[in-house]
Amino acid sequence: MSSLSMYQASIPVFIRMLGNLSAILEKAVAYATAKKIEPSVLINARLAPDMLPLSFQIQIASDMAKGCAARLAGIDAPSMPDTEKTFPELQERIAKTIAFLQTVNAAQIDGSEERDIVLKMRSGELQFKGQSYLLDFVLPNFYFHITTAYAILRHNGLDVGKTDFLGGR
Amino acid sequence: MSSLSMYQASIPVFIRMLGNLSAILEKAVAYATAKKIEPSVLINARLAPDMLPLSFQIQIASDMAKGCAARLAGIDAPSMPDTEKTFPELQERIAKTIAFLQTVNAAQIDGSEERDIVLKMRSGELQFKGQSYLLDFVLPNFYFHITTAYAILRHNGLDVGKTDFLGGR
Repeated sequence: MSSLSMYQASIPVFIRMLGNLSAILEKAVAYATAKKIEPSVLINARLAPDMLPLSFQIQIASDMAKGCAARLAGIDAPSMPDTEKTFPELQERIAKTIAFLQTVNAAQIDGSEERDIVLKMRSGELQFKGQSYLLDFVLPNFYFHITTAYAILRHNGLDVGKTDFLGGR
Repeated sequence: MSSLSMYQASIPVFIRMLGNLSAILEKAVAYATAKKIEPSVLINARLAPDMLPLSFQIQIASDMAKGCAARLAGIDAPSMPDTEKTFPELQERIAKTIAFLQTVNAAQIDGSEERDIVLKMRSGELQFKGQSYLLDFVLPNFYFHITTAYAILRHNGLDVGKTDFLGGR
């Protein structure tokens, strides 16, 4: 490690946090089993009626990570059609996302600070340079959805803590 | 902007997100006033009985940002004793944190990738290099607490959305 790079600030961060999310979901399955909670209750849980449920939080975190890797590297991201409705399906979504991220190497991502990035949103186009896309859009969104997934499960009684969120060292 | 730097990945991110948090708290005050909600109800609200309330989420986000700036720059952070109990006091905490961050310049932060960082935690010492401290500890924690503050207010009926969280561009 020498100076901070676009790769270091993105791909390993995504892989680590998605791994932590996966471990939290494993605990959620054990909790649901122990408490005889129907898993779909947790998967469809929301913090507010107009917030997205757990499944969507995970899907969007996955989208942020694979979309960022693909756009910064100038390659296509694998399509994942957001059909996951069970914990095993959500775990597979995370595993496929991590597997894709692991195929992207530093040489593909580094130097992407000035790359033009265009996002097509419902509200129109968002234009970024690579560095601003990573720092001002992807990372806040990625952490937002991982944290919200964690918060939904905590709110619904899962006994996890900050160490689960941050992961081991 | 040329290549990604420790400064770019930290100080402007903190300043922007704390500004967004401040704007969300302004909306929370207007909401409490309109709905005749005692402000302390929101300030003491939690997503789970063993999660921290809104005030602590803001204090810890502040601590993460000013502690990171100080440790990477090798200077002292201003002490803030976590006594805020009202929205104006929380806004002042955020403003003082932003004011401190604005005194820290790129030359003080850049090149801190390999700086030895030691955190004294209740559970013992945590040792990092500067880059890992920023990417693996500060940013996940900072976003965790900003997102949780947002989620507490959303869960309590505040009408804000992702645009408030991400801020204008």
